[in-house]
Amino acid sequence: MSDWKLPRNYRYAGIVSGLRTEPDRRDLAVMISDTPAAAAGVFTQNRVCAAPVHISRARLPRSDARAIIVCSGNANACTGEQGMADAERMAELTAIGVGCSPQQVLVASTGVIGRLLPMPILEVGIPKAVAAARPGIDGLFFAAKAILTTDTKIKTVTRGIGDRTLTGFAKGAAMIGPNMATMLGFLFTDAAVDPKDLHKILIKSVQSTFNCISVEGHTSTNDTVFLLANGTGPPLSGAALAEFGDAVTSACESLSRQIAADAEGANHLIKLQVDGCRSFSEARTIAKAIAESALVKTAIYGADPNWGRIVSAAGYAGVPFEETDIAYMHVGPYSLYERGRPLPFDAVAVSGYLKANRDITIDLRFTLGSAACTFYTCDLTEEYVKLNADYTT
Amino acid sequence: MSDWKLPRNYRYAGIVSGLRTEPDRRDLAVMISDTPAAAAGVFTQNRVCAAPVHISRARLPRSDARAIIVCSGNANACTGEQGMADAERMAELTAIGVGCSPQQVLVASTGVIGRLLPMPILEVGIPKAVAAARPGIDGLFFAAKAILTTDTKIKTVTRGIGDRTLTGFAKGAAMIGPNMATMLGFLFTDAAVDPKDLHKILIKSVQSTFNCISVEGHTSTNDTVFLLANGTGPPLSGAALAEFGDAVTSACESLSRQIAADAEGANHLIKLQVDGCRSFSEARTIAKAIAESALVKTAIYGADPNWGRIVSAAGYAGVPFEETDIAYMHVGPYSLYERGRPLPFDAVAVSGYLKANRDITIDLRFTLGSAACTFYTCDLTEEYVKLNADYTT
Repeated sequence: MSDWKLPRNYRYAGIVSGLRTEPDRRDLAVMISDTPAAAAGVFTQNRVCAAPVHISRARLPRSDARAIIVCSGNANACTGEQGMADAERMAELTAIGVGCSPQQVLVASTGVIGRLLPMPILEVGIPKAVAAARPGIDGLFFAAKAILTTDTKIKTVTRGIGDRTLTGFAKGAAMIGPNMATMLGFLFTDAAVDPKDLHKILIKSVQSTFNCISVEGHTSTNDTVFLLANGTGPPLSGAALAEFGDAVTSACESLSRQIAADAEGANHLIKLQVDGCRSFSEARTIAKAIAESALVKTAIYGADPNWGRIVSAAGYAGVPFEETDIAYMHVGPYSLYERGRPLPFDAVAVSGYLKANRDITIDLRFTLGSAACTFYTCDLTEEYVKLNADYTT
Repeated sequence: MSDWKLPRNYRYAGIVSGLRTEPDRRDLAVMISDTPAAAAGVFTQNRVCAAPVHISRARLPRSDARAIIVCSGNANACTGEQGMADAERMAELTAIGVGCSPQQVLVASTGVIGRLLPMPILEVGIPKAVAAARPGIDGLFFAAKAILTTDTKIKTVTRGIGDRTLTGFAKGAAMIGPNMATMLGFLFTDAAVDPKDLHKILIKSVQSTFNCISVEGHTSTNDTVFLLANGTGPPLSGAALAEFGDAVTSACESLSRQIAADAEGANHLIKLQVDGCRSFSEARTIAKAIAESALVKTAIYGADPNWGRIVSAAGYAGVPFEETDIAYMHVGPYSLYERGRPLPFDAVAVSGYLKANRDITIDLRFTLGSAACTFYTCDLTEEYVKLNADYTT
């Protein structure tokens, strides 16, 4: 990946600040745009949201963002007024280093919630991170590494849009969700985009990508996606803007899949395709109910073709339909259910398919309309329970 | 329990019909009222519901019910027209034995879904069950046993109302939910109650009891609660009717707790008390989100005082509130969170509390109003995953 083209005028760093107890673990990332950038953000819908979410949400969208500062290991959530002051201070320290106003800095955190940030560490660490920021792939990969929690791999993406570039990285402790399965995503481009367009594009892209992955349905207090565009000159419009929008969606899609695929404790990546619904929203609601059913997830883990769990999860999603509105349900290449009736099937073959493949597909087609949703999730394993049973202690 | 007083004019049986592969496993129950009984029912809200649910729902409320026939091991769900015909046939066979019309018979099933009932077994079994029905505790206990799936214990209850009696039993494969965590409940009284009143009382009682237990949130295709009242003479009214209503709620509460407490694979029974909400419905929504969070459940299993998971689950329940609207959050006797701020606490002591007690409490108090909900759930263990990973195979 060393021949990656990167967007111009960005610098990145990911350093070992000491926030984490493991020695040599990178835990503090900063991403700097050398010129003011249009910026948009999408955040968790949890009523209980972290201090950095409060702070950053109030600053977006804007046209002059200069930096993003991110710490991992501590979510700075449920930390009251002190937490707000600490998140503000993170922006302030970054602004001092970069040479801008704190308002131009966005903040994100991920980790255990309910603990105050160890500010003395950040007072030293943030200036160090800013000083370490540099253009190029090394800094980018260090930053991508510093935001991880229980992820086993960094998740990066790049897309060309004409002579401009869109690059991003993300983290998601998909399966084991110890820090509330927080998802963070950061995207950078050197295209020129109007902040309002940027906001619209980001919202739309997130809806069909990051909002269509699920592990256990526990919405994080900290979920954040930022998109920065520091290009100068006339902002993109018309077909060029549409092309840029497609690139953002494609990048978010790639990062989402990487998150679901890196699910710790998981043995299967499950792609749920729900078709033939009245609306995307209904298709997504059905897919989400299936994706978050512990019974479906344990059956897939056990390679048990207990397909009734899939159909019945669709049934309690809250979307009105009759059993006969289900055209069919497939697990991989096997058709198991059709128009309200079970089909005779080879249980050994279906079980064999689930055992042999890490990436499996479930297709559920309705006859209600033409809307569809693709949703990613993973199975529920004993390893998941073990990993989550003692995260803070 | 042999000094139980039972309601008059009921007979019960639970026999080994051969529906189940385990030898000597009781799998077919019949409950008969010798005189026509007022009858009410509450059913699953799943869009995909079992044939017996369709059949019984259409027959209620009524004033002349004579019998309930229940099979375990097969849910008769997702079985199309053949399933409907089979459920009808179950009622017909029962009616022939009892000497009534099929319309006077209610039907319930629980077990694996998507498989057709082995009708030849039921053609022989149902007449045998009807013939075996007798008054008294033995028949009742056999019936209570025959409806079980992965339950480890029968669940029974009795309440006196003046000189009348209310008796019931239930099943719920609470924790491991292999048959979609189906809950069945059957209540019998020799009081005289108007069918409309009976219906209202049952709906109201179920709302705060059976609807306030959860294992993994997977609504069954088969959930059913029936209440029969075969008393003659003027129906209860005024204070006597209210007293009867309280007895029904109390009986449902006891059965609900027994279901949650028998959760297989579970190490903890968790009582969630959510107070200070604007409405019961909002309190229940918040309690349900916490109860169904895999992260909360694994933390309890691991005796990990990761209380942020509890507060953040409340946050994504969909009920509008600010963090400062949370007056406090207690785990057992320990106060961990107050008005948007974490409290210093002894993590070892809280962990010790979770380790030492099988029955634990979580209290979450808001300052939004005076409505409350008590909700029961259990923890998520590796044993749960193991048990659910290969149910049908």
